[in-house]
Amino acid sequence: MARLCKPAVSAPEHVITIDETLEFAAKAHAGKPQLPLALRLIRNTGVLKRHIVQPIEQTLGHPGLTERNRIYEAESRKLTPPVIEEALKNADLAARDIDAIIYVSCTGFSMPSLTAWLINTLGFRFDTRQIPIAQLGCAAGGAAVNRAHDFCLAHPGSNVLIVSCELCSLCYQPEADDIGSLLSDGLFGDAVAAAVVRGNGGVGIELERNASYLIPHTEDWISYAVKDTGFHFQLDRRVPGTMEPLAPVLREFAKDHSWDAGSLDFYIVHAGGPRILDDLAKFLEVDRTVFRHSWSTLTEYGNIASAVVFDAARRLFEEDTPLQDATGLIAGFGPGITAEMALGRWSTDGPRELD
Amino acid sequence: MARLCKPAVSAPEHVITIDETLEFAAKAHAGKPQLPLALRLIRNTGVLKRHIVQPIEQTLGHPGLTERNRIYEAESRKLTPPVIEEALKNADLAARDIDAIIYVSCTGFSMPSLTAWLINTLGFRFDTRQIPIAQLGCAAGGAAVNRAHDFCLAHPGSNVLIVSCELCSLCYQPEADDIGSLLSDGLFGDAVAAAVVRGNGGVGIELERNASYLIPHTEDWISYAVKDTGFHFQLDRRVPGTMEPLAPVLREFAKDHSWDAGSLDFYIVHAGGPRILDDLAKFLEVDRTVFRHSWSTLTEYGNIASAVVFDAARRLFEEDTPLQDATGLIAGFGPGITAEMALGRWSTDGPRELD
Repeated sequence: MARLCKPAVSAPEHVITIDETLEFAAKAHAGKPQLPLALRLIRNTGVLKRHIVQPIEQTLGHPGLTERNRIYEAESRKLTPPVIEEALKNADLAARDIDAIIYVSCTGFSMPSLTAWLINTLGFRFDTRQIPIAQLGCAAGGAAVNRAHDFCLAHPGSNVLIVSCELCSLCYQPEADDIGSLLSDGLFGDAVAAAVVRGNGGVGIELERNASYLIPHTEDWISYAVKDTGFHFQLDRRVPGTMEPLAPVLREFAKDHSWDAGSLDFYIVHAGGPRILDDLAKFLEVDRTVFRHSWSTLTEYGNIASAVVFDAARRLFEEDTPLQDATGLIAGFGPGITAEMALGRWSTDGPRELD
Repeated sequence: MARLCKPAVSAPEHVITIDETLEFAAKAHAGKPQLPLALRLIRNTGVLKRHIVQPIEQTLGHPGLTERNRIYEAESRKLTPPVIEEALKNADLAARDIDAIIYVSCTGFSMPSLTAWLINTLGFRFDTRQIPIAQLGCAAGGAAVNRAHDFCLAHPGSNVLIVSCELCSLCYQPEADDIGSLLSDGLFGDAVAAAVVRGNGGVGIELERNASYLIPHTEDWISYAVKDTGFHFQLDRRVPGTMEPLAPVLREFAKDHSWDAGSLDFYIVHAGGPRILDDLAKFLEVDRTVFRHSWSTLTEYGNIASAVVFDAARRLFEEDTPLQDATGLIAGFGPGITAEMALGRWSTDGPRELD
C-alpha cells in the first residue's frame, strides 16, 4: 500500500496583488499592441495575489543566471526544511523513517540535487534514495505522487518524502513580451510543498492506480528555451484547450479501475489556469465546485507549478475530510504535454486489500 | 523480475587523442603554475582518446549557453535514436512494448525532456511513463538501472527503456583553470547509450537488489556551478579517495544479499578515473582485471558520465558471456557523493524465483 498523507505548503513572504500585477505590466509594456489583450487575460486568470521570494523591485530585474541560481539555492535551503518537518509530522514519521526523497523543481537547477543537502542537514538516512526530477514542470507534482506510489509497490513498507520547490518568479524574463510570456508573468507564483507517501498506515489518500499520458505532438506547446539568461518559459495559445483531448483519457483511466471519472468523491487537479479547470469540469461533466481546492490555490497563490496538487490536497485535508473509502482523482498537467494521473481512496484505517 | 539486456552505445564522430589533449591544454594555459601538475594528472588518467560532438576547434570555443543548449538538443535528437533502436533489438522488443523511459543526462537541459520527442518520433505508446533525471551526474547510470528495477517490481511484466545522453564537451569552460577543471578537460568524453530492462525473459543481468548511499557531508565535492555560461563542473581533490569509505558500503550491501562483494563473477562499475578503479580493487581486495570493462571504457572514451556503466556492461555482453547464475555488481558513483548499487545474476532462462 501507499498512502499520501497531508501535505505541508508554504509561500514566501513577499506578496503581489492582481492590481499591482496589472499596474507593473501596463508600465513595463506601455504602448505595445498586445498589452490590452494580455491585461485582459491576466485579469481573467482569477489570481488575486501571488507570493514571491524577493520584493517586487528585485523580482522585475534580471541580475543574470549566475545570481538567480544562487538565490534559488539559498531560498530552497531556507524554505523547504519547515514544510518537510511539517509533512513528516503530518505523517507521524521521523526523517529516519524515510526511504526515498523525490525532489521536483523546474525553476532552478543544481547538481547535486537539493536531496544531498537535505540528507546531510535534516537527519535522513545516508541510504535514502534520491530521485530528483526537474524536467516535468507542472506535471511533476502528479509524477512525484506516482513515482512514490511505485516505490512503495517495489519496496513494501517503505516511506517516500516528496519535496516540491517552485520559485517561478526567478524565471521572470523582463524582455519577453509575447502574449504567452505576458500572461505567464501574471499567472505563476512561488511556493514550496512537501508530503509523505507512507507504505503502511497513516491517514490520507490510499493510492490504487497510476498512469501517464502524452498528448501526441504537443511537445512544443509548453517548453523552456534555455538561454544565457536562464529558462525562458514558452506557452502556446493552444494549451488552455488541452482538457478536451485529456478528459477522455481520464475517463478511460478511471474506467479501467471500474470507477467513473465523472462521479468521484474528490478531485485534486493541477490549476494551470481558469480555462483548464472550467474545461475539465465541462468535459468530465462535473460541477465546477468539485475543483474548489484547485480554484482556491489558483486564487490565493497563482499557478505554483508542481506544488499545486499538494496545496489542493492540503485544502482537502483541512476541509471536512471525506468519508472512509471515498474515491478520488489526482492529476498533474505539464510540458510534454503530459498528464500524470492517480486514483485513490480516502483511508484512515490499517492496510486493506485492493480490489 | 527485471533483466538488464545488452546495452547499445555510440560515441560521436570527432576524436581527440591524449596527445592532442595535452597539446591543447599546454597551449591554452601556457605559463600557469598549475599546468605541469594538470598535464601529469591528465596523462595518468589512462584515457587514450575521446569522442566529441563537434570538431575540436568548435569545442574549445564557448558560443554562449543559448547556442550550446541548441547544439545539445540537436545532437541528442540525432544520436539517441540509433542506440535506442539497437537496444530494443538487443532486448527483442519493439517501441510499443516499452512502459517507461528513464532519460539520464547532466550535460544539457530541456523541458520537456527528450522523452516527449522520443515518444512522438519513435513509436512509443503515448501512455509511456517519462522519468527524466538530470541531477545525479555520473551516478545516474546506476540510478537508472535501479529505478528501472523498481518500476518492474511495481508493475510486473513491464519493460523499461533507459537512455543516457552525455555530451560532456558541451560543458567545457575555457576560462576555468583550477586543477580540477584542467583535469576534467582531459578526462570527460561524449557518448550516448540505451538499454532495456525487461520485466519478463530476455538475456542479461537479472536484477535482484538495489540500494543507494550518500557519503556524509561531501555534497560540495562534485558539483555544478550554474552560471550565465552554463554548467561549470567543480571537482574537489578529495574525490579520487572516495572508494575507501564506499568499499565497506558495497561489502555490506552484498552481505545483506548473502553475497561476498570481494568474490563476484562480474563487476560493472563507473570509471570516474584511474584512482577510483585502482582503489576499489584495493579496498574490495579484488584483482584490478575484474574492472577490465570499465578500464576499456575509460581508455577508449574517457569518463562518459552516466553512460559508463552501460558501455562497461556492453563489453561484458560482448566478451565470453558469464555462466548461468553468475553473480555481479553494478555501481554508479557521482555527485552527492552518491553511489547507486545493484546486484544481479547472469540469466538466460525464463523467470526464476528469487532466493
